Amino acid sequence: MLVYVTRWNCPCRANLYNREHPLLKGKIIQHFADRLLEAIENKGGPVCVGIDPVFDRLPEAIRNVTAEEIFPEAVGLLSEAERRAYLIQEYCGGLLESIADHVPCVKFQSACFERYHSVGVEVLHQLIQQARQLGLMVIADCKRNDIGISAEHYAAANLADPTEQNKEEDVELGPDALTINSYLGADGVNPFVKVGADQGKGLFALVRTSNPSGDVIQNLELVGGGTVSHAMAKLIAELGDGDNLVGSSGYSLLGAVVGATKPDDVARLRELMPQQIFLVPGMGAQGASADDTKACFKPDGTGAIVTASRSVIYAFENNTNVPWQQAIENAAIEMRDQVNAAVRG
Amino acid sequence: MLVYVTRWNCPCRANLYNREHPLLKGKIIQHFADRLLEAIENKGGPVCVGIDPVFDRLPEAIRNVTAEEIFPEAVGLLSEAERRAYLIQEYCGGLLESIADHVPCVKFQSACFERYHSVGVEVLHQLIQQARQLGLMVIADCKRNDIGISAEHYAAANLADPTEQNKEEDVELGPDALTINSYLGADGVNPFVKVGADQGKGLFALVRTSNPSGDVIQNLELVGGGTVSHAMAKLIAELGDGDNLVGSSGYSLLGAVVGATKPDDVARLRELMPQQIFLVPGMGAQGASADDTKACFKPDGTGAIVTASRSVIYAFENNTNVPWQQAIENAAIEMRDQVNAAVRG
Repeated sequence: MLVYVTRWNCPCRANLYNREHPLLKGKIIQHFADRLLEAIENKGGPVCVGIDPVFDRLPEAIRNVTAEEIFPEAVGLLSEAERRAYLIQEYCGGLLESIADHVPCVKFQSACFERYHSVGVEVLHQLIQQARQLGLMVIADCKRNDIGISAEHYAAANLADPTEQNKEEDVELGPDALTINSYLGADGVNPFVKVGADQGKGLFALVRTSNPSGDVIQNLELVGGGTVSHAMAKLIAELGDGDNLVGSSGYSLLGAVVGATKPDDVARLRELMPQQIFLVPGMGAQGASADDTKACFKPDGTGAIVTASRSVIYAFENNTNVPWQQAIENAAIEMRDQVNAAVRG
Repeated sequence: MLVYVTRWNCPCRANLYNREHPLLKGKIIQHFADRLLEAIENKGGPVCVGIDPVFDRLPEAIRNVTAEEIFPEAVGLLSEAERRAYLIQEYCGGLLESIADHVPCVKFQSACFERYHSVGVEVLHQLIQQARQLGLMVIADCKRNDIGISAEHYAAANLADPTEQNKEEDVELGPDALTINSYLGADGVNPFVKVGADQGKGLFALVRTSNPSGDVIQNLELVGGGTVSHAMAKLIAELGDGDNLVGSSGYSLLGAVVGATKPDDVARLRELMPQQIFLVPGMGAQGASADDTKACFKPDGTGAIVTASRSVIYAFENNTNVPWQQAIENAAIEMRDQVNAAVRG
C-alpha cells in the first residue's frame, strides 16, 4: 500500500534532533516584545543582521570546497545544489559566531534557503537552532500570507504549534518571530497572532517596504485621507492590541516592517502604530543612513530595530586585510555603533 | 572545518532523482497560458482541484497507519511529524490518481506541507513530480513575495532557474505556475515574470482574494477613482504585457487571483485585466456557486480557471457508500460539470 519511497526513509534521520538540547528544557513563555527589548539592552544596540546568503558572494575559500572534500565517503552523490546549500551552512555558521556577541538579533531570508528545496529548508532549520544556542534572537523573513487553516499551517511551520507536532522535536527550536504580508486583511493576520500569543513569539507585518516600487500600491491616496500603508498601519495597530498581545514593555507581539528609505512617511506611521516595534530595513546597501532610521524610534530610543544585510555579511569584499569572519564582526560592531549614535546621540 | 552534520548526508539521496524521467527529456518552452488553455480543452473543463491536506481529515484508513507499519525496519525512528507527512503523501498520491483524467490542473497549498519542515517540502516536491507525470498541470500556491535577489531565489525555488542549479535534478520538475503577492509593487513581480518567460512557466498574483476581510485593504476607495484591488489589477495588467509575455492565445503568463465570492467587482476586474487568466477560488466550501464564477470568464468561455479544494478532496466525508478515492473522483467530475454548465450553458 505504501509505495512512495522518500529520501527521508533513512536511519540517519534519528540524529537530527538532540533531545538534550538546552532550549528544550523549558517552554518559552515570556512575551516576544519584552524579550526583544531585553536582548537589545543586553547587546547594546537596536540592530539586526540580515542573513541573505547568495552562493556566488561567499568567501572564495568556502565557495571552492568540492563535494569530495565535504563528504569523501560519498563521492559522486552530492549534487551541485546540495554542495551549495552545505557551503552556505558553513558560511552562515561562521557568520553567526562572528556577530553573536555584538547584536541581539538576526533575520534569515528564507528565499535564499528555499531555493535549495528540502536540503535548504533543513539547513535553515539547523542554522536557526545554532543562532538561538548562540544567544541570538531569530526572525524568519518569510513574508508568509494566507487565510484560515493555511495561515495556521504557516504559523505552525514558522512559529510552532504544540497541538499537532511533537513538541520535543519541532516546537521550541523555531524562530522567535516571522515576517508576514497582510494584503489579505485580518483573516491573514489573526491566525499568526494567535500562535504568537500562545508561544511567546512575534510577527512583523509589511506596512511600508523599503523598495522604490513599493510606493505604487502602498503610497496610493485614499478617499477620506491617508494612504494604503496608513490603512495597513491602522489595521496592524488594531489587530496587535489586547491584553494578551501587549507586553509589559508596552509593545505588541505584532510589529511592522517600515523601510528607512521612506523617512518622510515615518512620523505618521509611528503615530498610527504606537505599540508596534518597527523592523527597519533599507540601511546600507539600499541607501538609507543611520540618521534616516531615527524617526522610526520613539524619543526614549525604543520601538525599532534596524536591520542591515549586505553591508555586514559581505564586508569581507571591501576589507581583505583581515580574515572574512573578522571583517564581518567589525562591520556588525560599526553598524551597531552608527545606529546607537543616531538614535541615542 | 566542516562540522555541521545534516540529515541529508546519506547515500539514499542518490535515489531521489530519476535521470530517465520523461519530463527531463526536453525543455518545456511552450507558453504557460497556451499550455493551460490546451489542457483545459483536453480535459473538458476550466477547473482546478486545490490540494490542502490537513492530517485530521484524511480517510481513517490512512490516518491510523502506524509508524511501524510504514517502516518496519526503522521502529522508533519515525517522529509523529514524519509519520503525518508520509501519510499525507500517501493520501495525495491516491487523490491525484483519482482526478487526473478529469481535470487539467491541481493547486498545492504549500503551507500544508511546509508545516512538516524539510520532510514536508520533500513530500511536496515528489507530489509535484507525480502530478506532472499523471498529465496534470501544477500550480504551487505559495503566495511568495519579496524583491530583488530574494524574489529571484523564490522564483528559482518554485519555478526553476537554470543559471545556478543543476538542470537535470531540479529545473524541469518544478510546478507550472506559482501564486505571488504583489503588495511590494513591480520590484516584487518582475523577477518572477522574468523566470516565467524564460521557463514557460506562469504566475497568479493576488488581486481580489475570496476571504471576507480581504475587503479591509483591497476594497478601499482611492482618490481619483477605483479601489486598491483595481490599482493592483492595473499594475498586473501592465507588468504582464509584452511580446514575450503574452502567448498565442492572447493571455499573459502573469495571471490574477480573483475570488468568486466578490461577483459585484468581477466585471470591472475583467475589464482592467483583459490579458490575465483568472484563478478563481471561493466555490464550494467558501460559499460561491458555479454561477458566481461566470463573470470571471470572457464570453467565449476562456480566461479563467475555477479552483475548489475542500468540497472535492474531502468528498468522502459525506459519501461513505463508495471508497474514498471514488468519492473524490465523483466530486471532481461533478464540480467540472457544474462549472461547464455555468460557463458554457
